[in-house]
Amino acid sequence: MHILVLGAAGMVGRKLVDRLVSDGRLGKDDITKMTLHDVVAAKQPERAGFPVEVMAGDFALPGVPEKLISGRPDVIFHLAAIVSGEAELDFEKGYRINLDGTRMLFDAIRLAGGGYKPRLVFTSSIAVFGAPFPDAIGDEFFNTPLLSYGTQKAIGELLLADYTRRGFMDGVGIRLPTICIRPGLPNKAASGFFSGILREPLAGQEAILPVSEDVRHWHASPRSAVGFLIHAATMDTAKIGPRRNLTMPGISATVGEQIAALKRVAGEKVASRIKRQPDPFIVGIVAGWPRNFDPKRALELGFTTAEKSFDDIIRIHIEDELGGKFAA
Amino acid sequence: MHILVLGAAGMVGRKLVDRLVSDGRLGKDDITKMTLHDVVAAKQPERAGFPVEVMAGDFALPGVPEKLISGRPDVIFHLAAIVSGEAELDFEKGYRINLDGTRMLFDAIRLAGGGYKPRLVFTSSIAVFGAPFPDAIGDEFFNTPLLSYGTQKAIGELLLADYTRRGFMDGVGIRLPTICIRPGLPNKAASGFFSGILREPLAGQEAILPVSEDVRHWHASPRSAVGFLIHAATMDTAKIGPRRNLTMPGISATVGEQIAALKRVAGEKVASRIKRQPDPFIVGIVAGWPRNFDPKRALELGFTTAEKSFDDIIRIHIEDELGGKFAA
Repeated sequence: MHILVLGAAGMVGRKLVDRLVSDGRLGKDDITKMTLHDVVAAKQPERAGFPVEVMAGDFALPGVPEKLISGRPDVIFHLAAIVSGEAELDFEKGYRINLDGTRMLFDAIRLAGGGYKPRLVFTSSIAVFGAPFPDAIGDEFFNTPLLSYGTQKAIGELLLADYTRRGFMDGVGIRLPTICIRPGLPNKAASGFFSGILREPLAGQEAILPVSEDVRHWHASPRSAVGFLIHAATMDTAKIGPRRNLTMPGISATVGEQIAALKRVAGEKVASRIKRQPDPFIVGIVAGWPRNFDPKRALELGFTTAEKSFDDIIRIHIEDELGGKFAA
Repeated sequence: MHILVLGAAGMVGRKLVDRLVSDGRLGKDDITKMTLHDVVAAKQPERAGFPVEVMAGDFALPGVPEKLISGRPDVIFHLAAIVSGEAELDFEKGYRINLDGTRMLFDAIRLAGGGYKPRLVFTSSIAVFGAPFPDAIGDEFFNTPLLSYGTQKAIGELLLADYTRRGFMDGVGIRLPTICIRPGLPNKAASGFFSGILREPLAGQEAILPVSEDVRHWHASPRSAVGFLIHAATMDTAKIGPRRNLTMPGISATVGEQIAALKRVAGEKVASRIKRQPDPFIVGIVAGWPRNFDPKRALELGFTTAEKSFDDIIRIHIEDELGGKFAA
């Protein structure tokens, strides 16, 4: 089985590649080749039991999608995207990569000929939804994004469903929750604090909480995200029907519940490294974000989280990122 | 006020132009110029109290949208589209006109500069919805089209909302019900019988009913469609908020109720010209279509139908198309 990963150098892409290299297989099939693409070169995996080709560049240029699929990958993970903040600041770049690039990839598959019909897993986002929301967003709630990024992801979902319905590919779109705890350095994303208020204290550093503790949001661990991708790539898609885009399960938690979990897992002293410093700009942005979902279809179709509680999300970070230890 | 109509030679476009020429104004403003575009030249209106420029050609070619908006129309009615059957048969043509053409138009507006921000009224369709449906589709039901046409219209809606949110234009998307009674000759659209079983008998001719009488669908008269367009062009859009695409009101009726209305308005003899001849192909297509809506937001925002009942839909056809007389 040949696997192509677009966006392979991103956080989720790296974790997916690590898992695939470690497993050596995807579902029942041995991996025989992997192609990794991103705008910057992904790290060449060590100890892969199969050849891994690493390609770097802009995938939304004429001819590039055709080249990427020229080896007829059986499974394509399309994780490549301009993230929300940048897509909002640079209108044309966001549309060029997130809409045109996605469509160019889908069209390259459509026009490949010879009965080529790969499984394509597309990472969409809960940004396809826009406030006001019901208490828990159900599977039939409409997409009214309030950012260009969410608009572009919603369009990608529509294209995926139509190209799949027409028989050009076997697509599954998965709307990832906010990934928590996001490893690495703090970034400037408005959502960054959801991870930062846990990651930095666990590393012995202070973190700023810019919103009130009653802010509720929808989270899943990086380990869950990889599990969703693997399941989407291996599941029996005949069971999905024409509604090919699914909200992934997650944990709905308030910031207060996040902090209580941190206290339970790591102690009061760690939690005391969180400094409250309200930021009206971030408060305003976060007010429009989804708080909770009822992802019935994804659960019925076998998508599961690696965590049962927010405590587990913290434990997974300590296990997967900190080697089991934190700064008590 | 300068008005541009794209798709001006189509059935709804022609009726809109007739109404605008007859009114001489749109809302509070006198019309000073009108530009009509379609792939075939629209008829030059007689007795227009203002200059009317008629342009013909493909609007989705480089440079054409820029040319169309070069006169800085204050209001743009974007009715141009490849219809559902053709968009399903010719995948590339449907996407090129319905998606690329729409986006090229929106981008031409975005890049026009000088603070240009026209009101843009986009005709979407109830084809953005896909079965299974609730009894009445509410304003928060999701878009899961089952045709490429519906996919392209749903993408147009998302673009319209995002381009409006970004301040590039003042867009309103309206999802028209199936227009009934559609004047003119029978066409091969799967929905054609909804009009045909009324129009042909009123003209003294037989009509084929290919589905059972319990099939329910969502209808509005051509007069209502023009009313929706005018209201969308003149309403206070500050009241809409970010959810810029609205399901228009209509009349939900079964085929049996349509026939009962025909009997009440035109008599048993006219209704006896309907011949039952089930067509499994059409039965299958129609099974996936919306039956009924709860268009609360559109009603709150002042959109109203010209008809209060299906009887009115038939009367409007007799008044507007048959000069008050039918073949009894």
